Formats: sequence, C-alpha cells, structure tokens
Amino acid sequence: MIVGTGASPGIALGKVLIVRNEPLIIEKEEITSAEEEKGKLLEAMEISKSQIAKVREKTLKELGEEKAAIFDAHIMILEDPELTDNTINRIEKEKLNAAYALKQTVLEFITIFEAMDNEYMRERAADIRDVSDRILRNITGEQTTDLSMLEEDVILIAHDLTPSDTATMNKEKVLGFLTNIGGRTSHTAIMARSLEIPAVVGLKDITEKLESLDFVILDGETGRIEINPPDEVTEQYKALKEAYEEERKALEEVKGKESITADGRKLELAGNIGTPQDIEGLQKNDAEGVGLFRTEFIYMNRDSLPNEEEQFQAYKEVLEALNPKPVVIRTLDIGGDKKLSYLKIDEEMNPFLGYRAIRLCLKEKEIFKTQLRALLRASIYGNLKIMFPMISSLEELLEAKAVLNEVKTDLDKEGISYASNIEVGMMIEVPSAAIISDILAKHVDFFSIGTNDLIQYTCAVDRMNEKIDHLYQPFNPGVLRLIKMVIDHGHQEGIWVGMCGEMAGDKRMIPILLGMGLDEFSMSPSSILPARKLIQTLTFNKTQELVEKVLSMGTADEIEEYLKNTIK
Amino acid sequence: MIVGTGASPGIALGKVLIVRNEPLIIEKEEITSAEEEKGKLLEAMEISKSQIAKVREKTLKELGEEKAAIFDAHIMILEDPELTDNTINRIEKEKLNAAYALKQTVLEFITIFEAMDNEYMRERAADIRDVSDRILRNITGEQTTDLSMLEEDVILIAHDLTPSDTATMNKEKVLGFLTNIGGRTSHTAIMARSLEIPAVVGLKDITEKLESLDFVILDGETGRIEINPPDEVTEQYKALKEAYEEERKALEEVKGKESITADGRKLELAGNIGTPQDIEGLQKNDAEGVGLFRTEFIYMNRDSLPNEEEQFQAYKEVLEALNPKPVVIRTLDIGGDKKLSYLKIDEEMNPFLGYRAIRLCLKEKEIFKTQLRALLRASIYGNLKIMFPMISSLEELLEAKAVLNEVKTDLDKEGISYASNIEVGMMIEVPSAAIISDILAKHVDFFSIGTNDLIQYTCAVDRMNEKIDHLYQPFNPGVLRLIKMVIDHGHQEGIWVGMCGEMAGDKRMIPILLGMGLDEFSMSPSSILPARKLIQTLTFNKTQELVEKVLSMGTADEIEEYLKNTIK
Repeated sequence: MIVGTGASPGIALGKVLIVRNEPLIIEKEEITSAEEEKGKLLEAMEISKSQIAKVREKTLKELGEEKAAIFDAHIMILEDPELTDNTINRIEKEKLNAAYALKQTVLEFITIFEAMDNEYMRERAADIRDVSDRILRNITGEQTTDLSMLEEDVILIAHDLTPSDTATMNKEKVLGFLTNIGGRTSHTAIMARSLEIPAVVGLKDITEKLESLDFVILDGETGRIEINPPDEVTEQYKALKEAYEEERKALEEVKGKESITADGRKLELAGNIGTPQDIEGLQKNDAEGVGLFRTEFIYMNRDSLPNEEEQFQAYKEVLEALNPKPVVIRTLDIGGDKKLSYLKIDEEMNPFLGYRAIRLCLKEKEIFKTQLRALLRASIYGNLKIMFPMISSLEELLEAKAVLNEVKTDLDKEGISYASNIEVGMMIEVPSAAIISDILAKHVDFFSIGTNDLIQYTCAVDRMNEKIDHLYQPFNPGVLRLIKMVIDHGHQEGIWVGMCGEMAGDKRMIPILLGMGLDEFSMSPSSILPARKLIQTLTFNKTQELVEKVLSMGTADEIEEYLKNTIK
Repeated sequence: MIVGTGASPGIALGKVLIVRNEPLIIEKEEITSAEEEKGKLLEAMEISKSQIAKVREKTLKELGEEKAAIFDAHIMILEDPELTDNTINRIEKEKLNAAYALKQTVLEFITIFEAMDNEYMRERAADIRDVSDRILRNITGEQTTDLSMLEEDVILIAHDLTPSDTATMNKEKVLGFLTNIGGRTSHTAIMARSLEIPAVVGLKDITEKLESLDFVILDGETGRIEINPPDEVTEQYKALKEAYEEERKALEEVKGKESITADGRKLELAGNIGTPQDIEGLQKNDAEGVGLFRTEFIYMNRDSLPNEEEQFQAYKEVLEALNPKPVVIRTLDIGGDKKLSYLKIDEEMNPFLGYRAIRLCLKEKEIFKTQLRALLRASIYGNLKIMFPMISSLEELLEAKAVLNEVKTDLDKEGISYASNIEVGMMIEVPSAAIISDILAKHVDFFSIGTNDLIQYTCAVDRMNEKIDHLYQPFNPGVLRLIKMVIDHGHQEGIWVGMCGEMAGDKRMIPILLGMGLDEFSMSPSSILPARKLIQTLTFNKTQELVEKVLSMGTADEIEEYLKNTIK
C-alpha cells in the first residue's frame, strides 16, 4: 500500500496504462546549415499551433470556456517573440541544432518561473514545458502516447499529465490518474476534480513501481493506492466505491432543493471562495451565495498594488455570476502569515497577534479606500455585502465604517453610482469582539464568525504549530460558549449571524450550530451538498436540546465523543 | 532639559560633584625586575583586600547583610587564583609591569563576561572592573575621589558608580545620582532605590555636560534633568519635591495598617517577585503576602537545569521569610519570549501562541516533577500556594493536578513530609479559561488573573509590537467583562480570586477591581502602599456602582476618560 496526495475524490479499480511522456532527451548536434535549422523550428511551431488550436476546440466543446483558456495561454507562449527570437539567436550565433537551441531557451524560462516562491508561477512553468515538448516532438518527429485513442478502461499512470494530455484523452475510458509529481493545486489535480475522475498525485516514482497490465485500486480521498491486491481487499474497495457513488447520487438529488430542516427551519448554505475562478465550483455545488470572498488573491503574485479598475472587474465578475444571490466580500486581510512582496511589513515576533487585516487598512488608508471604491462601483452588478476582518473593538469598527462613508461621499461628488442597500458586516474572530458583540451588533447588518482565528486566539494556540496543535480545539467549551454568545447577541439586535470558518462545514458541528440558531453557513463549496443533505434530516428542536446538553460538558474530548456517538 | 532613565524616584536639587572614577590609563612600561613587579602586585592585592574588608564592615552595619555580600564577591574575585596566576605569568613571561599585566588579565575576563547576552553576567563584569580598579590604584598610588569625606550636600555625577563608591560614600550628604551608563537594573540603580536616593542613569555624557558647582535638578521618576534652570523652574520642582515627600510620609503612615475600604471591606495587597532578593522590597513596602513568585530566575543564567535541592533552597528562603503570610509560587513559565539556552525549543512563528508554560511542563514531565517536589518539600517552611500558568482547558488543569498528586505519592513513599493544606490554583490568562472559569473553579482553590496575557489574547495584540500597541487595551470592555466573569464564577464556587497582572497596581483600575469583588491584588511591591492608601479612601458600595457604569460603556477610550475624571 502506497499513500500519495488525494487530489480528486472517488475510488477507481482497474488495469494501468503507463503514459510515457517524460521530457524528451535532446542532444546537441552538429549542424550543416543554420537556415535549415531555423526552417525546422518555424515549421514545428506552425504545426504545434494548429494542433493546439484543435485541442482548444475539443476542450471548449467538452469542458467549456474556462478550461479552453489554458490553450489560449499555450498559444500565447508559442507566439511569444522572446521564445522564437532567443532560439533563432542561439541557432545562428552558437550554431546549435533547432531542438537543442529551443530546449536551452525553454530551460532558461522555466528556471526563472520555478525559482519563484509561488505555486501559481511554478504551475505556469508546466505550461511552458507542455508547449515546448509539443514543439520538440514536432521537430524530432517523436510520437507521444495518443490518449484520444484509448479503447479499454484504464487508470493512467504518468510522471505528470500535461494540459494537452488531459484535453485530448478519451475521458470515457479513463478511470483514474496516478502521477509522480504535483500537489492539490497542480494542473492534474484541478483537471481531475473538474472531470470528476478520482486521482492521487505526488507519488514520486509510481511510473517505476508499476507495469502495464498491473491492477491497481486508488482512493482519491485518502490518497491510498493498492497494487495487485488480494481479492478481499478488492471486494472491500468495491463496496466502498458503491457507497461513494450512492452518496454522490444522493447529493445530486438535493441539488436545487432548499436547505431546510425536517421541521421547517430554513438556512443559507454559502461558499467560501478565493478567486473568480471558483464560481464554477459554487454553481456545480448549488451554493446559495458566497459567505466569504477573500480578496487577497487580487493583491498576490504581483509587483505592485492592484488598481481600482482591476479590482472592480474581479468583484463585478463574481457579483454578476451570482446575482441575485448574496456575495459577502471581505476587505483585505493581508499580514499575519500572508505577505505581499511590494508592501514592506517589518518582521514581527508574533505575526498572528500583529499588524494585519483591518489594522493595516486603517493605517494604509489609500489601499483601503481604493478597495472600497472598487467594491462600491461593483455593487450595482449584484447583491454585495461588505465585511471587515479582525475587528477587535468598537472604535475600529466605527473607524472602518467612517472610511466607507468617506468613499461613498467621494463617489457621490463624482456622480458615480453604487447600490443603496449594501449590507455592512464584520468578522467575529477576535475574542474581545465576540464578548462585546451585543455592543457591536448595533452598528452592523451582520456578523460572520471566523472560527479558525477565533479558536486560535481563544485557546492561545497557533494552529500551524505542531507541538501544540492538540490544544487547538474546535470543541473547546469556551469556544462553543463564545459562538453561542455571538449568535444570541446578534439576534437580540435583529441582525443575521453567519459563519465562514472551517467549522461551518464540519458535519459534527452543523447540528450544534443549527441548534444555536446560526443563520448562514459558509464553507468550501464541495461541502455544501453533504451539509444540505444532513440538515434535511435534522430538526431544529432536537438540535436545540443537543446544544443544551453539549454546553453542560467540561471538555472538548467529552463533547467530541458525545457528538460522534449521537450524530451519524 | 535632558532625559535619561529614571532609576530611583524622588526629586533632588543641588550642586553637582563630578566623581572622576573613569578607568585608569595604564601604560606598558619597561621593567627592571619581574620579582619587583610581582611584589608590587601582591602588596597591592593585600592592601585592596583589607580595604574591601573595611568597606564590607561599614556596609554590613549601615545597609545589612545582603548589600554587604557584594563585597564578599569582591574578595572572591581578588582571591581567584586565575587572576593572580595569569597576571604573574604575564609579568614573568612577557616582562610586563604589574599594572599593565593585571589590566590585560582583567580585560580578558571582562570581555568574556560582557559578551554574554545576559544582563546579570554583564553586571558581574562591573564588579571585576571595580576590584581591578582598586588594585590598580593601589599599585600606581593614584587616588580616587573619596566619597566618605563629603562635607556639603551634593548630587554625584559619574561615568558609573561602583559598589565601592556607593558603599563608602557619606550618604547623609548625597542628594542624588546621575550617571553616564546603566539601566533600571544596574548596580547604581538598585543601590539608589535601596538607599532611597533619587537617581537618573544612562545619560550617556552627563560627566562632559556638567562642571563642578553647576546647579541641577533631577526627577528620578521621569528621568528629567534641568541644568542651571531659571528660578521659576526651580520653584516648580521645589513644590513637586515637597508634594512627593509629603506623599512618601503619608505612605509611611499606612505601613502596618490593614488594606480596608472606608466601609470595611478587607482586601489582600500582595507583591509580585522574581527572586528571593526581592524579599527586602516586600518587607519595606509592607506586602501582605506574595501573589506571584515567578520561578523562572532559578532556571535562567545557567548551563543546565537547576536540581531539586537548589530549587528547594530558593522556595524555602521565600516561604520562611514571609511566614505565615501566603506565598503563591507559579510553576515554570518558560517559552514564549523567555528562552533557556540549555532547553532547545524549536523556533516558532508565533511564540506567544506557542509551546510554553504548562504546555511545556506537561510534555517535559521530569522538569515539572522536580519543581513540584522542591515546592512540596519547601511547603513545611511557610504558607505555600501552588499556581499553574497558561491553563487553557479543564483537561490541562486535571493533568497538571494529576502530576502533582503523583509527586505527592512519591514523597509519601519516601517518607518525606510536606504541608497538608497547600492550596492549588491557576492563572486565568487564556480567554478560553476565563470563559469556562465556572467549570474550572470546581477544581482549584483560587484563581489569579494574569492581565498582561489575558489582554494580549483577548484583543489578539502582541503588546511588544509597536505598530499595534494602541490596540492593547486594559480598558477594553471585552477584557473588563471577562475579568468580572472570572470573579463572579470564582465566588459562585466559593474560591478566592486574585490578580497578578500589571492592572492590579494601576490606580485607575483598582476601584473597578474592588467593585467587581476582587479578593487579592498582587503588584510590584513599590505600588502596595499607594494602593492601600487609595483603598482606604474608597467604599465598596460606590465602586460597585462605578463598575455598573463602566460596563455599560462601549469603548476603552470612553471608560478611560470617565475614570480619569471620576477618580483622583
């Protein structure tokens, strides 16, 4: 049994097909004519371009615009004059063969991208590699495994799958993926989830461990692989696979339904998202809105602050796509463990207790104002709610609201319109805010409880610190009491209370939160349908009794144990 | 006007006397006979020894055993064979004059001590310098300013004052000290406080700025210095000095009195201490006990863990000295910003939210058990109460108590006796503990609220971080509510509740804490008499009304402002 990174859930059992698509070996060769090599290069590039165009078309038809866009990026790489010019330069000046010259140029590009401490840019290196491999194969005439011709069901085993591989392959015949490299956000992982094909990645040398005709089982949830297992193991997994597929089917059935308890209490199940690209996941999982749109992505992976227009476009895209569903957009929560290269923040001894989020925005007011302007301008395209993070006192909340009003006044003066009914809320993630939430509730339209930080501060535990992560207790009775206090305070003042921390999607926690009266649950989109299904089986009355029972307990262990035995 | 570090409170006005005791300039000289130089060295050392013995005797008579001990250390330095042998070696091998050879040897020693990243060891370097200066002056025959012969009132100005200077000087005539170097814990500062002479240290070049016969005013509280000021400034300071002295006298009057409100509510005013050396300060300030004895000092400034016997002696010393007054000893609170060189703790991203205090003790059980054994053994010498720091859940508290019981069982088996009535309590400094203090109170004999950390976690603010220290709010309504909750919960369960954070000694806060029902206030010993005086003017009834008023307010600013105007 081998364990890798579970990248796309589901269980697959089948024969393996090893895809030999490791990078080509390109040797330096003596050339007779630079002109001839230049000709080879340009011809191979033309062929590659028309191949990519075809792949793009197939992808567009089968997978839609967003996935097809990968191949637009490929064409852009192909058309990058730096790539062609540098390669031709090498051919002419250094008398290199076309393949070798291209390889050298591409290696330079890739080295730069891979050196960036940034997963996104490293993944872009994979695109460049994919394009250059295609050109090289077209120069050398070497054939690649043609995945469009698969005739029997297989589990694909590869060093990595390129965007071209996944786009051209005959999906009907592919049961699963196993790759040597990649993580949860690698291209292969994203594609696998999008295609709903079970996959395990980051297996290091799986291409060496397996041979064609081997029989493997993979569990895309746990990352487990069984190679030529005994029959009883195969039977176990078959049963698991059946159960998994039944569950999927059951989840399909709650799509389009309301999130309502058996005794008629209606809740809102929303999604947490990080970029406009996540809209697809929201729609597929039938989210009833966005409970947390983190805006940090707009500020990351770049050299300077994003301008108002860029931000406006991103917010507008999400608001329009969701309209009329509510979209809670959180203002910039940078600092702590999230740094921006172009915004110098002094090293801090305890960044989690430091200069971050609203604290930073209230000092760097221009950054804050630009974001608020972009948000207000986008508000007319959908149902926007603005949320401030890390508020720890009434002073901060009032100050943040004052800045928002300033920006509104500016827009009024400039004759720029914005929605008149934008709700303004705040995260409850600092204990002091939870404790005075009765006072704060008089000044906002909603609360959203950020449990990750709230637990961290309430228990004084950095959850990233392995030495003490046993003390990071979602079921800590102190944490649960605080959550109840916030919900009660919010309702006393007539505002709605949501939650956007990981707890909101936790099956063991949902009944308690429901019983406490939580109005909105915002979670990872893939948790929404399971949560809806669970809620449909619960009654508000019973969960209220459950809350009473749980709050009488003294330790997190006792509570967790009780919930494990009570909720199935 | 110049500002230095206020090192000992009080105001002094007077003429300056510049003490020229900068290190001697010692030149390398040709020698005629090594034997002769050796003779000079040994003779000077003999003379120095008898001088130090006299100084020791004078100090013992005037200042007591503890201060006299400095000169025992000086004699030990003088008798250190390494000092003599290395110097004689230099004289013989390198043909150096005695003074130069000694100077070189001493420089070697001092360099080692000063390089240590540890204030205590750096201060020891000052002792070596003091002793060697004395020997050098005895070799060269150079005279030092004789401070025992002062005939008129003066303010002493010096590069630094050596222990010998402060011990021999005619204290009747010294109005104040000003020195170029030193901090609040330097020898000069400690001596000044002990002698109750106003002092400002760390003034960099005050010996250059002043001339004898200059008139200066110094404020040992604020660190301000006025040089030859105009008459109106002098008059202002004279008034301040009078007010200060009247206050001192008034404080003297509450010595030996009870800490009781005008309407008869009796409180306990205890001291926070860090080492057995602080006993003197407790006694001078009439502390009614020790509310927090930090035990970290025993573990610091050394190469290995202290053994049980060393710890036992330290705890016994404090317990005996205070007996029958209560002494709350806190178990080891290492980690966070307090590191031990011999106990490797991995670098942490957020040490304040990390592996520290009880978290460390419950993993490093042998360290914890050794301390608990030493505490239990010392318990028969006084009125010991044991307190656990950083408890964040009931599980941790029960686990810590279980270890204590294990150690008791071990001692029972070994026939070693310990007090039968030792109270066991815990710090309330983590929000989760405050929130479930009703549950925790069933398992301890007392709570002590550690406000420094409690504020830090409740407001999610590292108070050492200058960028956000405005958010570290003692008057934050959330913090005040938590404190009230803890006191109420404790009283519901019939246990006493104390406080050992800085808040307990804050004049603006004392009326609120009193009104909330706090039983024990533990503070820096020098705050005890002012606190007692204040409490005698308050009534419990009125402070209860004050609490009600303050808890209805929404912001720290509003509360602070109200208290400033209400309490004088």
